[in-house]
Amino acid sequence: MIEPTRLDVSGERIRAVYEFTGPPVEARSRAEALAVEQTIEFPADLVPDDDIRGQIIGRIESLEETGPRTVRVAVGYAVETTGLEFPQFLNVLFGNSSLLPDVKLVDVEIPSTLVARFGGPRFGIAGLREMFDAPERPLLATALKPMGMSPERFAEMAYELALGGIDMIKDDHSLADQPFARFEERVRACSAAVRRANEETGSKSIYMPSINAPHRLLDERVEIALGAGAGGLLILPGLTGFDHMRELAADDGVGIPIMGHPAFLGGFVSSPTGGIAHDVVFGTLMRLAGADVSIFPNFGGRFSFSREACTEISTACRRPLGEIAPMWPAAGGGMTVDRTGEMVDFYGRDIVLLIGGDLHRGESLRESAAAFRSAIG
Amino acid sequence: MIEPTRLDVSGERIRAVYEFTGPPVEARSRAEALAVEQTIEFPADLVPDDDIRGQIIGRIESLEETGPRTVRVAVGYAVETTGLEFPQFLNVLFGNSSLLPDVKLVDVEIPSTLVARFGGPRFGIAGLREMFDAPERPLLATALKPMGMSPERFAEMAYELALGGIDMIKDDHSLADQPFARFEERVRACSAAVRRANEETGSKSIYMPSINAPHRLLDERVEIALGAGAGGLLILPGLTGFDHMRELAADDGVGIPIMGHPAFLGGFVSSPTGGIAHDVVFGTLMRLAGADVSIFPNFGGRFSFSREACTEISTACRRPLGEIAPMWPAAGGGMTVDRTGEMVDFYGRDIVLLIGGDLHRGESLRESAAAFRSAIG
Repeated sequence: MIEPTRLDVSGERIRAVYEFTGPPVEARSRAEALAVEQTIEFPADLVPDDDIRGQIIGRIESLEETGPRTVRVAVGYAVETTGLEFPQFLNVLFGNSSLLPDVKLVDVEIPSTLVARFGGPRFGIAGLREMFDAPERPLLATALKPMGMSPERFAEMAYELALGGIDMIKDDHSLADQPFARFEERVRACSAAVRRANEETGSKSIYMPSINAPHRLLDERVEIALGAGAGGLLILPGLTGFDHMRELAADDGVGIPIMGHPAFLGGFVSSPTGGIAHDVVFGTLMRLAGADVSIFPNFGGRFSFSREACTEISTACRRPLGEIAPMWPAAGGGMTVDRTGEMVDFYGRDIVLLIGGDLHRGESLRESAAAFRSAIG
Repeated sequence: MIEPTRLDVSGERIRAVYEFTGPPVEARSRAEALAVEQTIEFPADLVPDDDIRGQIIGRIESLEETGPRTVRVAVGYAVETTGLEFPQFLNVLFGNSSLLPDVKLVDVEIPSTLVARFGGPRFGIAGLREMFDAPERPLLATALKPMGMSPERFAEMAYELALGGIDMIKDDHSLADQPFARFEERVRACSAAVRRANEETGSKSIYMPSINAPHRLLDERVEIALGAGAGGLLILPGLTGFDHMRELAADDGVGIPIMGHPAFLGGFVSSPTGGIAHDVVFGTLMRLAGADVSIFPNFGGRFSFSREACTEISTACRRPLGEIAPMWPAAGGGMTVDRTGEMVDFYGRDIVLLIGGDLHRGESLRESAAAFRSAIG
């Protein structure tokens, strides 16, 4: 038995909801084990009746049978367990519990101290509507590809796409610093190309380079992007970390929109009974970590997300979440211009429509982009 | 159709093996789609017969039916697609394919250029045997816990554990910079305590603080740890990124052993037909990213890993992998001293035995630690 400990704890709690799959009769003991695992990771019988037991161990707030073999359990964690830091916040939510069988993280709510600390999207839905002078319409996005093209070719593409009226022209997420198109050269060329198109047409398109870099080079790549006049950043938090994205969003010296890409994060949503729910990964976590736009694979494309999952994600992007601004869902992944109407009907007008390869099928990129722009009415 | 492109490509290839679940007859077309997805993410019919088609798109090297509904497909990726950078290497392996249904990454081999670039463990099995003056025996590890204790209490624990003969005394992975035990104060106190124990007994125990910090504070925490004389670092790459760990391992200014912790990574192994295989996550990737020790949950503890998964992980830690040093598997998660013999029989002597809470059950931590040390013979 350890010595009794008294602690100064505010009482503010994070609320995490887990779905347990298995016999409902076992759910309470499994939940109690999880609440220990996520906090003290120590034999509970060796903890006296003190503040570690009363305040630090997660508190089971509710337990509800949602099916013959599923129970939803809400666990409250003292905000102090996170040290008010995002990586440790994720650790409290799903660090070791990610390794437990048949436990899925399905919802997260955070108290006001963390809302203030994490901040969320700098622009969000309202901010990008203002930036693009688009008070009502969906926003349009596309990607520069394929890998193997030169910086000059990407810049020509970016110019044509901006002339055609695409709002956000991002790097394909596969573009890093390959020899075919070095980061700095590509970013300077594409930023200049989009600026030139904007000057010619008066439009407000932005180029968003992909900041998928080794840890030690992340700051340098961001500085190059800012120096070149890039209008936004594409971030892959599954590879460079959620907290890096959050810091970029919070940094007044950056101050441009951030698009979060789902690369590598699919592993979390590949199990029906484990991992993290689609809407938590691509909605809540992306949003808490400051993405203004969150890309996810639309139903009916190359990927496997269901209509239901897409609805849940887009809802999580836009639902009330403390003072955290709503975020744009961006549905992509093998989308085509002829699905535009269907997608707007499905998602509503607060949606970013992301079409990549399909724009290359027409006579010219500019015409394809213009047709895409016309299609949103 | 895009214009034909000629590229300077070395011919060196990464080999990634995926398991597809579903009708075997569909495997080839699914594999072809994946090889495009992971590289150019562009309609293949719009690419002419050029070097993008011939060199950049992943090449299907083999395809083997391994069960009535499983096919293993080896895909070769030109090393240039990674830009020789670790985050983009992970992106090529499993960026968008993580979002495809019923595709699991099950093996990875890298060519000599990447071996030289990534480096792997600085110490590995031989290096830590020398450091701990332990030519043959298993190594012992434990964790300072529970969260809520003061730096002084953790330091007392660390002192007792070092006196008892534990090699590696790490922070519990839940310890970050909480108000109960601020990082700097804790790390100074625990480093000093272990140093004092070593001076008294002539042993070579090390304290390994957890560097689970916001992006912007990672360097500062490492500097504090080095300044305090910490003997190693605990890294949670699922939260702070694989590439951060790799850079620490490669940094001569750090130069101390690294223990990789599996927090948050369980999401990747929660699906039998998706995500990443256990041995790739906790073996190959941890090792390529420079961990000297990789922690994973032992079978029969609080977690769910099977004996088979544990065998595969420990094999991946130690098998030949180019010039990359073998890494210590560290089996933990609810382990007890009385299972020591069984674990050594199962894993062999190149194993780190990690026992946390169970050491607190005896009369004194020092005695429990000494009993643990005796148990390995």
